[in-house]
Formats: sequence, structure tokens, C-alpha cells
Amino acid sequence: MSHPASVGAPHATSRAALLDVIRAAGQISRVDLARETGLTGATVSTVVRRLIDDGLVTEVGRAESTGGKPAVLLSLQPEARYAVGVHLDHGGITYVIADLGGAVVSRWRRPGAGADAPGAVVERVASELRTLVSQAGIEPDRILGLGVVSPGPITQATGVALTPPVMQAWTDFPLADALQAATGLPALLENDATAAAVGEYWGGQIEASSCFAALYMGTGVGSGIIANGDVFRGSSGNTGEIGHICLDVDGPPCWCGGVGCVEVLAGPAAVVSEARAAGIDLPGVGIAEDFAALSRAAMREDGPARDIVQRSARYLAVAAQTLANVLDLDLIVLTGPSFAIAGSLYVPVIRDQLARTFFGRASHAVDVVISPHASEAAAIGGAALVLQSELAPRHSFQRAAGAPARLA
Amino acid sequence: MSHPASVGAPHATSRAALLDVIRAAGQISRVDLARETGLTGATVSTVVRRLIDDGLVTEVGRAESTGGKPAVLLSLQPEARYAVGVHLDHGGITYVIADLGGAVVSRWRRPGAGADAPGAVVERVASELRTLVSQAGIEPDRILGLGVVSPGPITQATGVALTPPVMQAWTDFPLADALQAATGLPALLENDATAAAVGEYWGGQIEASSCFAALYMGTGVGSGIIANGDVFRGSSGNTGEIGHICLDVDGPPCWCGGVGCVEVLAGPAAVVSEARAAGIDLPGVGIAEDFAALSRAAMREDGPARDIVQRSARYLAVAAQTLANVLDLDLIVLTGPSFAIAGSLYVPVIRDQLARTFFGRASHAVDVVISPHASEAAAIGGAALVLQSELAPRHSFQRAAGAPARLA
Repeated sequence: MSHPASVGAPHATSRAALLDVIRAAGQISRVDLARETGLTGATVSTVVRRLIDDGLVTEVGRAESTGGKPAVLLSLQPEARYAVGVHLDHGGITYVIADLGGAVVSRWRRPGAGADAPGAVVERVASELRTLVSQAGIEPDRILGLGVVSPGPITQATGVALTPPVMQAWTDFPLADALQAATGLPALLENDATAAAVGEYWGGQIEASSCFAALYMGTGVGSGIIANGDVFRGSSGNTGEIGHICLDVDGPPCWCGGVGCVEVLAGPAAVVSEARAAGIDLPGVGIAEDFAALSRAAMREDGPARDIVQRSARYLAVAAQTLANVLDLDLIVLTGPSFAIAGSLYVPVIRDQLARTFFGRASHAVDVVISPHASEAAAIGGAALVLQSELAPRHSFQRAAGAPARLA
Repeated sequence: MSHPASVGAPHATSRAALLDVIRAAGQISRVDLARETGLTGATVSTVVRRLIDDGLVTEVGRAESTGGKPAVLLSLQPEARYAVGVHLDHGGITYVIADLGGAVVSRWRRPGAGADAPGAVVERVASELRTLVSQAGIEPDRILGLGVVSPGPITQATGVALTPPVMQAWTDFPLADALQAATGLPALLENDATAAAVGEYWGGQIEASSCFAALYMGTGVGSGIIANGDVFRGSSGNTGEIGHICLDVDGPPCWCGGVGCVEVLAGPAAVVSEARAAGIDLPGVGIAEDFAALSRAAMREDGPARDIVQRSARYLAVAAQTLANVLDLDLIVLTGPSFAIAGSLYVPVIRDQLARTFFGRASHAVDVVISPHASEAAAIGGAALVLQSELAPRHSFQRAAGAPARLA
């Protein structure tokens, strides 16, 4: 039988809870730490002493006196530990390194997995990571771990399960284990859309009480869901698969087994083939690049390119309506590499659809915004998940009071 | 700043936590209560003394000795308090009374709201409730409150917001407040599909760790979502509005503002008009009755009635696919008055669709079952929500260990 959530705290989480509150507060006294966490003064003193010995926390001065002896203030040592986010996709691999305070201190974009064998890609990632860490001047033993991000669905934190056509070689490949073995760092695996949602939550101005979805478009389409600071993970961590909901029961078959899916009607691959069938000239080096070229043409002038992207936007808007009506969202953030380029073409169509059709509109609106860091949100989320597992393994993450989170 | 969930428990919730653990355990000693809840022995003793004085808990004997003096066992007094669930719909009003232990001790089905003015319906409900309570021999001061259930969406626990065509008079009517004033009982308001999900969770054999949806069909179509014992409420308590997701971007307009919605393509009203257009003879006394008559004809023999219901089932199956792919469900329970009659026609179509198209099928299957108490699950959920607010206001509800919950 599980315990009620608010009574009794295993001692092992005190350290994480204190670290998280110190990080969110910026500077805080031991007395305030005890009040914020509900831990006893004695526990706070013991755990803080150990955090100082480990170099994670430092004494930074004294609070203004309120009568008695002014209290010593504690602060996180951001450079004491780091986390790496690696976002692996067919079209590109994005690396970020974040410090313990949540600031991104290093970023790198490299060519994608393409048609290379998984083993070769893993070796390259391990090598590129060594280069990145070395160039950033970070001691390797200060790195807590890797947050590995890949297209979903993923199986129990080990591998990629059902893979899009361009990544068939990755089916059942134990990605996290292989990267852990190649780098010597603990690795956790998350799907791209959920990681992007975490990245948006860390890096954005999103209200902690928000129920929001990151609508993610890279090569595929998905979404990550966060309600009140918690990722909604469903039964196996594969929620938000909005690319594979049906919008036409008589529509064309999709690689997933369904018909009329959002991806097959309106995802980047579908948009690119439609453009090519319409005779629009595209570079032909890959779906991501072709989609970007088409989107830039659609932004430049009215014409067939814009019609094709508008048609895609209409379907994505209906997908957003579905997400909002199923999840009762108050915010949708457009993110991922494809929205990084084409977001401005999609956002008015999605806003208009939700204003007309969101079922709960008598209660509240659904805001729709483009992420300010759409192309690296998933990698940031990977790093954030590693930090979160260190700082607050069992809880909603504490957002910094007053100031926005520093990530991104 | 909110506190991490596991550190520090406001004293006010100790009573609720202890009541909930006693209910779930059946019989339990004070020592085991302290262990289960993490509360100190002194707190347990004080609070249990007060629960005994209030008549909510009683000492029922002694545990088998494990060496020392055998411990006194505590048990809930189920008849100490009761909760009422009232499910108000156009086609019928369902009442249930549940005792503190979760057993349904009384049930009543009365004519629906129909075209009557909201004020008149509220007066009737208050009068029918007095009759029901009196016939059940329950002292009115033992009733904790009313769980009022209506079609959604609902606004901040006060009223019905956006209403289907048959219930236009209820727009913005403060239903909970009006019933509270008319009955003198505290009232909470919940939408029908979410209440049905709570009723299924209380009354069913559903795993506490399940992420499931109650797919609800009454006059309209909706769903309620429960993950790990918690209702997923989204931003304003109006999640799961699967009746108003679009399955055809060029489909017919729906009363909600959208086009091609599940309800307008495949809900009971759409099915009934399609049948009438096809010349099938129906009683014509109301959508619920006509849908029931058509469903019975479809079960009896192959023919136009079956074709029409099968077409509806095909759309509902796609809606189930959407729910499963967005929420990563492991279980869908078909419930509500219309599935109470027609569930067996829908369940094979939905099962087949999910077996072929659920995106996470490499990780796990999605079970699809018909509720054993589909016609009253929403009313049971209304009563359960009242008990839950008394027993465990801030927590996931504790399922009885070993035995299934007693409700229903």
C-alpha cells in the first residue's frame, strides 16, 4: 500500500529537496530552508553541512538583521555539477551542457543520425561529447549524467520501440544503455516531445500552475504534456502522440498502422512530398532541409508553397484543438526544429481554430506561442531531466521565485 | 512557493489520512496506522480518540498476538456518515446513497430534466432526495453532502457553461449553489464523464497504478481520465472532451463551434437522426430512448440498424485511438447510459482499432471493457467524490488492500 503523499518523507530525499529549494531561492538561510521544506532544523544543518563539504552549496554572506544575529545565507555553486542533454534525430544531433543552476553553458549542433548504423552513431556521440566537454573546460567527473532524447515511442527507459521509416535501424536499439557504456556516464532516455516540454518549462516564462502542451514538430509531430509542473507520463511515458491521431477515417495509411494520421496528412514529410508533386523545386537533401526551404518560400510570397503549408497548418490546428479539448490546456507552445523555422505560418491558424472551437472557452482561453528556443528545447529538456533527477527526484520541480528559470 | 509534496503535513489532513487508511485496511491497529501514515504515535492516538468520539471509528477486537499484548483493532463505522450522488441529465436523474465505507445503500432512477426550467428541476431534486433519504431510514444529519453530476463543461464548481442544444436553459445556471440552497447540504459539481471515471475506479477492479479513461456515452460523448488514482483535471476540470474532437475537417458543423466532431458524426443524437432518415421506426420520445431502441434492433439482426450503429462504433473507435495515443492509456472502460445498452456493439470495434493503431503497442496493450454498472457510474462517482473530500481531500484515494472497493 502506498503512503499518502504528504505524510512521512524518506530521509534520502531531504538532500534533493534542500538542493532544489536553495536553487529556486537563489540565496536562503538555514531557518528559511527548514520552514520551506518542513524538515527539522537539525536535519537541515546536517544535510547542508554535507552539501557544503561536497562543494554543491556555499555560504555567501549574511541576511539583513531583523533584530538578532543575522542569518548566514546559502547559495548553490552552479559550477559544481553539470548535466548534458543530447537530442538525437535523423536530421541533426543537438548537444547542450547545463550547470547545476540551470544555465546552458555550452551548445553544439552536429549532423544527424541519417542512415548510419546505431553503433556508429553512438561512437560518434561519445567522441563529440568528449570534445564538447573538453572545449567547455569542464572536469568530466563533475558531469552528473546524460539526458538522451530521441523520437518516441520509447520502451521502459531502454530503447526506441516503434520507429519512423527514416529510423528503422533503431527499432529496439538499447540507446540509453549503449550511450552509458560508450561514455561512462549515467544516461536517461526521454522522447523528443516530452523533453521539449520540460525544456520549455525550465527555460520559459510558463506559470507553474499551467496545464500546457509543447506541440513539437521536427521530422515528425508529437507533443509533451506538463500539468502543475509534473510531466504527464501515462502508462509508459509515451503520451502526447498527436502525430498519430486520425483526422480522416478514410485517409491514407500511415507507417504507424493507422490511417489519416496528422503526420501522414500534414507532417513535414507529407508537406515536402506534396510540394514536390506540385513541381516546387526543393534542395532534396533531407526532409528537415526541404521543409525549411518550402517554409521560407511560403513566407516570402503568396503561391503554391504557402497554400501547401497553410493546408498543413489547418490540420495542425485541428490537432491542437484535440489536445486542448482532451487535456483542458491553457497554453500550447510550438517548438521543435520545424516550428523554429515555420512557427509564424502556423501560429495564427492554430490561434484562430482554438478561439472558435476550444470546448472550455467559456472558462478560459488557450494561449498559443512560438518557443523562443524551439530548435534546442528538446536537448535542454534532456539536461533538465538529469538535473531534476539529482535535485528533486520525486517532486514537481520548484521554479525560481520571482526570476524566470535560468535555463536557455 | 509550494512545498515539496512529501515534507511537512498540515495537521488538518491527519484526520482524513487516518480515516482513509482505516477504510482501505478494513481493520487496523494504532501501531500499523502510524506506520502506514508516517504520523507519530501520539498524533494517531489523539486523532483516533476524536474519531471514536465522533462515531466514525470503532474498536472491533484485538489482533492475533505476536508475543506482547495483542493490539486493539480499529474499523470504520460505515453507517456513521453517508454521501449522495445525483446525476442530472436531460434523459434521466439517477440518485445513489453510499455509506462511509463506500457501499451503495440506496439507488433511484427518476425522469430527466427534459425541457423543465432549471429552478423547477432543482425543487424536484430536493424533494426526491428527501423522499429517498427518508425511505432509506437515514438520519439527514449523517449526510456529508451531495455530489452533483451534469454534462460539461462546467465553470469553477458553480455552474454549467457551454450546454448541448437540449439543455440550453441551463447555460450559466449555478447548479451546485442552487441545490445547496434547496437541500441545505454542501454540494460539489462534477462533469458526467469525470464522475463516471471516479465511479468506475471506486467500484471496479481497476489497478491503482492504471492510467485509464472512462469513455462515456449518455446523450453526448465524453471521457474522464484517472492516472495512478488521481483525476487528471487539466486547467479547469474539463478534460476528456472527446465528443468535440474533429474526425473530419470538412465535416458537418457541431453545436460546439467545431466541425466534424465525434458527437455530430457518431453520438446518439446523430445516430438517431441517421436512423430516422433511413426510415427506421423509433419511439420518438427522446434521444436516449430512441438510441436504446435502435441498439436493440441492431443486436437482434443484421440490417440497416446494425449498419448505422457500426458506423458510429467506427468513429468511437477512432476517438478511443486518439485518447489512447494522447494519454498513453492501458485501459478504456465503456460507461454511461448509452453504453449500458449498446456497449457490446462497440467493444469489438474499439478493441480491433486499438490493436492495430495504438502507437505504444510495442510497450503495452490497451484493454477495453464494458462497465458492469454503466448506467449509474456517474452518480456513484458523485457520491465517491463527496466521500473522498471527507476521507482524503488532498491525496490519491487509497484502494482497499486485497479486496476490491465496495462501491457498486
